[in-house]
Amino acid sequence: MTLNPATPDFANQLSAILPDGVLRDIEPRYLEEPRGRFNGQAGVLALPQTVDEVATLVRSANAARVPVVPYGGGTGLVCGQVMPDGPAPLLISLERIAAIRGVYPQENVLVAEAGAILADVQTAAQGANRLFPLSLASEGSAQIGGNLSTNAGGVNVLRYGNTRELCLGLEAVLPNGEIWHGLSRLRKDNTGYDLRGLLIGAEGTLGVITAAALKLSPVPAVRGTAMFVVPSAQAALDLLSFARDQLGEAVSAFELIHRQGLEFLAETLPQLRQPFERAPEWCVLIELGLSRGQDPEQALADLFEAAVGDGCALDGVIAQSETQRNELWTVREQIPEANRLIGSVSSHDISIPLSAIPEFIARGGEAIAALGAFRINCFGHLGDGNLHYNVFPASGKSREDYDAQRSEVKRAVHDLVHQMGGSISAEHGVGRLKVEDVERYGDPVRLAAMRAIKQALDPNGIMNPGAVLKV
Amino acid sequence: MTLNPATPDFANQLSAILPDGVLRDIEPRYLEEPRGRFNGQAGVLALPQTVDEVATLVRSANAARVPVVPYGGGTGLVCGQVMPDGPAPLLISLERIAAIRGVYPQENVLVAEAGAILADVQTAAQGANRLFPLSLASEGSAQIGGNLSTNAGGVNVLRYGNTRELCLGLEAVLPNGEIWHGLSRLRKDNTGYDLRGLLIGAEGTLGVITAAALKLSPVPAVRGTAMFVVPSAQAALDLLSFARDQLGEAVSAFELIHRQGLEFLAETLPQLRQPFERAPEWCVLIELGLSRGQDPEQALADLFEAAVGDGCALDGVIAQSETQRNELWTVREQIPEANRLIGSVSSHDISIPLSAIPEFIARGGEAIAALGAFRINCFGHLGDGNLHYNVFPASGKSREDYDAQRSEVKRAVHDLVHQMGGSISAEHGVGRLKVEDVERYGDPVRLAAMRAIKQALDPNGIMNPGAVLKV
Repeated sequence: MTLNPATPDFANQLSAILPDGVLRDIEPRYLEEPRGRFNGQAGVLALPQTVDEVATLVRSANAARVPVVPYGGGTGLVCGQVMPDGPAPLLISLERIAAIRGVYPQENVLVAEAGAILADVQTAAQGANRLFPLSLASEGSAQIGGNLSTNAGGVNVLRYGNTRELCLGLEAVLPNGEIWHGLSRLRKDNTGYDLRGLLIGAEGTLGVITAAALKLSPVPAVRGTAMFVVPSAQAALDLLSFARDQLGEAVSAFELIHRQGLEFLAETLPQLRQPFERAPEWCVLIELGLSRGQDPEQALADLFEAAVGDGCALDGVIAQSETQRNELWTVREQIPEANRLIGSVSSHDISIPLSAIPEFIARGGEAIAALGAFRINCFGHLGDGNLHYNVFPASGKSREDYDAQRSEVKRAVHDLVHQMGGSISAEHGVGRLKVEDVERYGDPVRLAAMRAIKQALDPNGIMNPGAVLKV
Repeated sequence: MTLNPATPDFANQLSAILPDGVLRDIEPRYLEEPRGRFNGQAGVLALPQTVDEVATLVRSANAARVPVVPYGGGTGLVCGQVMPDGPAPLLISLERIAAIRGVYPQENVLVAEAGAILADVQTAAQGANRLFPLSLASEGSAQIGGNLSTNAGGVNVLRYGNTRELCLGLEAVLPNGEIWHGLSRLRKDNTGYDLRGLLIGAEGTLGVITAAALKLSPVPAVRGTAMFVVPSAQAALDLLSFARDQLGEAVSAFELIHRQGLEFLAETLPQLRQPFERAPEWCVLIELGLSRGQDPEQALADLFEAAVGDGCALDGVIAQSETQRNELWTVREQIPEANRLIGSVSSHDISIPLSAIPEFIARGGEAIAALGAFRINCFGHLGDGNLHYNVFPASGKSREDYDAQRSEVKRAVHDLVHQMGGSISAEHGVGRLKVEDVERYGDPVRLAAMRAIKQALDPNGIMNPGAVLKV
């Protein structure tokens, strides 16, 4: 199917049927992405204010066979939001469709429009004494529509699930320009295929999400945070099992940190206070969210004592104040910034079946060592089996020194992940960056089914072409 | 697309390429369903032992344009498992593909084949000191494949979600007879469309689920059970909010019970011990699952005291022993049996946005009263907004006396549910019983998308024709 560019003529057609102010000059920020890998392009930029305007835009694009790229906060890391080649697309930014339409505390539901900033959704939930648990580094600028389209992960997946699990219903414009009114606030609705789950994670290739009914949770009455030194990655897993046996769902986050990350922090952000005098080989950050009447410091102290007895903890720091909690979290949250300052050869957002992680770390280290001298910073959401496995230049070398080796490093990591039953994209999605990898490693029967679904819902192939599936 | 019956010739074709013992004589039990509404038919019955045999069966049926009905435990309540008319189908029972393939306690994952009985899955999880939380009345005979195909609900959805939320990956035979190897044990895998979520709840119309990787949870260390009398349905909701504020996710179940249900119990099962001397208008059954070191009786006593102070509880019984816990649960679990013995005019498995439930109960009562003299037993999973809203003959009358009114009663209930943003099938699915209702009340854009997906994945329309979508 040949697509046509969004030309000035097409823009004129749209102007005639849309209110003033919907079509805008294309600012460069809409064509950039955080990693600077791709430069986007656009023929027309639209900032609709209503769902009907989105429908008009998509319907017109479908009739004219013009590609459509939906645009949220622009924080995606796999280039789903920038279309670097092919006919110049119509870019639809949802930023003006951003209201919190309703908060229903008794139902534990909040209805937000796609352009609402994630942090604002969190705040609206807090205002009703509820928790919207999705939390990730870009929450100050990411939009909930983008979080949904990419099925975002973040630090609370262990307890609360991925974005797909946090959504009850959707309103969306399908590729034919029709509006699906599916903003159900129901926990249970078993009346046919899960179109909601299908659009979530489709990265704009099956339609434009315009609003969502989101699940809220009770706010844990008290929180506790600790960092435990563990003798090995296996011990970290044992500690996780142990913590969940003792504390159940109260374990909200369980983050693995490697010495390399702490050393990068010391090197690039020396003002940052570190919890241990000597950086340990492995440590974990544990966050508990407990109900009323429970004592988080005591719970963590009991856990520590038992873990030491069991050989799965060596040392530990339990936060005694909000300041100390923030300090511990800052260490975890600044690791990506330290990584950025060092400059990786290749970064990987992978997941591995939990029990295979120690073996993966061992075999990954060997595979990378076989390719040359590198430093590896392996850290992340251990509770979800989601590691950020990032490979860096040896000390004294720079990212550019390894330009020739980048693809073999990436290939070695992804081959191993695939062999061990893991995923080459745990939480960032496919976008355009990982389309080839999904083709290489994906189950062919599933890929064929995905293509059939894409063809069925978007026969002209206008929605975000080149993302998720090869054109 | 015209389909052909599964003839003796077709059976002979299959015999030639399958091991002995796969094709069986058709016993009547495969053609019946629990409510006796439909009589099924079948041309050939197959009991494959391997996924490859399922693939061979489906591939052959697809080539011959023979309809396929997948068969699990046969406990479905909406007739998805029986095809009463059209060309006689190939019935594929999964009962011999029933192994627990693996338990991964450290990952909180269990891999089960479709034919495994739900109770056996629960037991296998318990054996690894883990909880598989799906729990429903038919768990002793329902198979996990059927639970997945119907996205079953049950009593623990409030805390743990529907079956879809309890599944990480699937192995399935798609309508073209190809096997999707998607048994991922990963919590996070963001590499394309959610085929898993689409097959779950598709009731066998998009393929045959043959195995699943299931999510396990920590076993709550201690449990507590109580029944509180509440002054109104609104107070029951207030109590639920209150309980979740105090106890967070520890509230595992929150079941609403109406006086009518207790009176039916007294009438039909008089030997059953009831918790209150005089049946209250409304009461709720509360189940807590707490972590180590917490005291469930104390937690329930605190909740009761606070709830009385707040005006949302009037009286209460807190179980002090396992025997008392079982007694309270027996009351709840025997209500459907009492209903069956009384004989309903019309039963409805509906859900309503939580905050609209009191209004629904009031308006539903008025709508039914306008149609004549009836008794209403409204009970169910209040925490999920899922009510079993069952309408019974007035005292002294029988079900048959209302035969002429049955459809208008059903229509009145469903119209009101739809008006109030609810679902006409909360947990039982669509099957064949509710196809017309889904056509009437469903969002037309969603229905069109469902049809497009069905056509894309099953172009010959062989999979469970007549279920979920009109042929």
